Amino acid sequence: MTPFIAEILGTGLLILLGGGNVANEILKETKGNGAGWMSITTAWGLAVFAGVVVAGPYSGAHLNPAVTIGLALGGIFPWEDVPSYILAEFIGAMIGSTLVYLMYKDHFDKTDNALLKRAVFCTAPAIPNTWQNILSEILGTFVLLTAVFYFTEPQINDAEQTRVGLGSLGALPVALIVWGIGLSLGGTTGYAINPARDLGPRIMHALLPIKDKTHSNWSYSWIPVIGPILGAGLAAFLFLSLKI
Amino acid sequence: MTPFIAEILGTGLLILLGGGNVANEILKETKGNGAGWMSITTAWGLAVFAGVVVAGPYSGAHLNPAVTIGLALGGIFPWEDVPSYILAEFIGAMIGSTLVYLMYKDHFDKTDNALLKRAVFCTAPAIPNTWQNILSEILGTFVLLTAVFYFTEPQINDAEQTRVGLGSLGALPVALIVWGIGLSLGGTTGYAINPARDLGPRIMHALLPIKDKTHSNWSYSWIPVIGPILGAGLAAFLFLSLKI
Amino acid sequence: MTPFIAEILGTGLLILLGGGNVANEILKETKGNGAGWMSITTAWGLAVFAGVVVAGPYSGAHLNPAVTIGLALGGIFPWEDVPSYILAEFIGAMIGSTLVYLMYKDHFDKTDNALLKRAVFCTAPAIPNTWQNILSEILGTFVLLTAVFYFTEPQINDAEQTRVGLGSLGALPVALIVWGIGLSLGGTTGYAINPARDLGPRIMHALLPIKDKTHSNWSYSWIPVIGPILGAGLAAFLFLSLKI
Amino acid sequence: MTPFIAEILGTGLLILLGGGNVANEILKETKGNGAGWMSITTAWGLAVFAGVVVAGPYSGAHLNPAVTIGLALGGIFPWEDVPSYILAEFIGAMIGSTLVYLMYKDHFDKTDNALLKRAVFCTAPAIPNTWQNILSEILGTFVLLTAVFYFTEPQINDAEQTRVGLGSLGALPVALIVWGIGLSLGGTTGYAINPARDLGPRIMHALLPIKDKTHSNWSYSWIPVIGPILGAGLAAFLFLSLKI
Repeated sequence: MTPFIAEILGTGLLILLGGGNVANEILKETKGNGAGWMSITTAWGLAVFAGVVVAGPYSGAHLNPAVTIGLALGGIFPWEDVPSYILAEFIGAMIGSTLVYLMYKDHFDKTDNALLKRAVFCTAPAIPNTWQNILSEILGTFVLLTAVFYFTEPQINDAEQTRVGLGSLGALPVALIVWGIGLSLGGTTGYAINPARDLGPRIMHALLPIKDKTHSNWSYSWIPVIGPILGAGLAAFLFLSLKI
Repeated sequence: MTPFIAEILGTGLLILLGGGNVANEILKETKGNGAGWMSITTAWGLAVFAGVVVAGPYSGAHLNPAVTIGLALGGIFPWEDVPSYILAEFIGAMIGSTLVYLMYKDHFDKTDNALLKRAVFCTAPAIPNTWQNILSEILGTFVLLTAVFYFTEPQINDAEQTRVGLGSLGALPVALIVWGIGLSLGGTTGYAINPARDLGPRIMHALLPIKDKTHSNWSYSWIPVIGPILGAGLAAFLFLSLKI
Repeated sequence: MTPFIAEILGTGLLILLGGGNVANEILKETKGNGAGWMSITTAWGLAVFAGVVVAGPYSGAHLNPAVTIGLALGGIFPWEDVPSYILAEFIGAMIGSTLVYLMYKDHFDKTDNALLKRAVFCTAPAIPNTWQNILSEILGTFVLLTAVFYFTEPQINDAEQTRVGLGSLGALPVALIVWGIGLSLGGTTGYAINPARDLGPRIMHALLPIKDKTHSNWSYSWIPVIGPILGAGLAAFLFLSLKI
Repeated sequence: MTPFIAEILGTGLLILLGGGNVANEILKETKGNGAGWMSITTAWGLAVFAGVVVAGPYSGAHLNPAVTIGLALGGIFPWEDVPSYILAEFIGAMIGSTLVYLMYKDHFDKTDNALLKRAVFCTAPAIPNTWQNILSEILGTFVLLTAVFYFTEPQINDAEQTRVGLGSLGALPVALIVWGIGLSLGGTTGYAINPARDLGPRIMHALLPIKDKTHSNWSYSWIPVIGPILGAGLAAFLFLSLKI
């Protein structure tokens, strides 16, 4: 599997599971209807886990342009691979959200509230306020990238400092971090913390023939793109500063 | 322990715990009544964990004909072992659901709603719609098998590439994947994603002398069998395609 | 730390945390009041984790006479150590439940329902029925012991088959199993699955000067003792049968 | 990264995530409003995980003066480093709670109840009672430190007893212990179990220009400082006693 395919597949799984959970939580007549914030954040954490398990060994499993850009800014990912990674992440997110729509189509059709239908695709702030909303996305992504910069793998503590991976269980730490970010920093904007996770499905919301849909809230759409990139930049700056 | 016995025991534990949880959630006067979708999906994830812990070292712990067939299609499980594995998985599922009935018998007797009693045994769609329901089962099983195909074990990162298992903790990744599938893709059909998990207990629902039971919904019964097999086939096809 | 002290300390932590959670869930004016079955079962799983982390390296962390007897029946624990382990487990459980009482005393005093106060100490069946209740305790403990018999530790997969522990994370599998048993098989009798966990605190319920308490339900008290021992015996029998 | 910076960063993450979750749970119009005790305790456990992942390799990730003092009393941390660690922990906690305020500012402004606003910063007892409240903080911190004293890392079980870390997954056990303490022993005082977690944000509550705030409850403020230190001392005493 090439890194390009891995990022598509991993981000596709992330959005299929993450968006699928939101559909399950808020669309009409689903089995998980109203299961609540704990359930939503757990599902997004596990969605990250699934994506990282599959894509990790092939692409490093960024699944998120903010991660790709942050790692490049931090000097541990080559800039020339950034465009193809971001492209793959967007393709994956768009495929994933399309699958969510196809799978939950009957439930979309039964749901009257067009804002809930849109929420399956993309985030919206609890209280719209440009600078506050950007700050939320910056802080959430800053926590994610800071953790990513300082993740370590097991080492056999001998002279040769041999490294040992954890296999698929190595996907757990980032899943736990995303779970925590959701529970704690998701309360204001719904923690996009990932431009592809928000803009990719938002584009699909605009394109798909969803019954009785509302507009795709383009006036807000730049915040979950710029905020995460700024947050990733801040984490990269801190990481580089502390290395000196 | 032979692989045959291991698959019986592991699938038995899976269904005893998974079905037991559904009984605890929806039958009358239980201590976990109404605990909700988060709780149900956590329990099925942990049920997978228990089954894999016990059967893993002896049979690889498929516990699911869709896994068995998918791995055979993917070329990493011998076709000649497929029939005995599937037989064992069905036997285990039937024993497990019988134990659930025996254990929760007083609560079955106190529950009036015959659909709830049946739901302890087998799945039913939130909105019946053949093609949509098949699609749900395909997607859920596709995610499961894709993860299974790409699971990795720890490796010591030296010249000899020595492999290290994680012991019983190695059962955690698949449990987390099943937890995530439930939270995210279980909202439409209740995520059978396993022909033995659905058809085995459905047969027992028909055979057991459950008080005031309803029919076993045979007209739906083929969907949680065919859907998972198609989903496993799709994952195997992707796996083989990406290997080239 | 001797094994005797380790079993006291580990079982004490188990009951302090497990019983403390029940107090937090059901006594008046607590911060976790009414948090629900998911929360209760998670807490007992984590209580097991805490006890095993501390006692594991010193005594193997049985924390449960059914585990001690089951392992002896299975031939992997010496019979001559059984009495001292069981004694330590009861001492630990009695200390733990006393600490719960001391810590939550103001909340005990504010709670009117004497059955809720007793429930902090010991289990009671949802529907009293001797044989059904015994069966529940047998099945829950059977699952626990079966998992315990088949737990494995990581091994470096080379010629010498060197074993590697997981350190404190090695306590996670048994905690996950107990979490799952609670969610799935706890709905009928409240899953004592441990004679010391039930009888030790029940004795303290009888001895402590709890305000407006009711009787300690001695007529039920033998079931969470005999049931778990029978379940452990059944698991040991299966384990020995499958070794042949 | 120096240990001083690591403790600031780690404690900052702990309080940003932990306090952020409380804001998300109790302030008006947040997405996680009313998610409940299970959600709160999970978030604090994951907040610990995030802090330990980042600070662990650089400072040992105490993130808590009670841990710092307890380890010094237990003889496994040098007393001369205690003051700088405690200072860093307070700085981190104050920065973290300031970020929570900035991020959730609109929700602070919309919330009428001044006690809820204060609860985002610092703990308050369910039933005020000096000795009972101190006992709660002692017991919670005793459990935390006892676990910390007995944590072990994996070892390759050969003649050289080579130690292997778990990498970032090594932060999981302490996160699970804090999760369990919250679920079980948090019901009375809200489990500060950390002087910096409580007093640092309490100072910020007094200093920040929070709209319509109430007093910072200084009369209670010493209990979540003294209680945890006593609990840590008790655990250290037990640890040293059992070593003999």
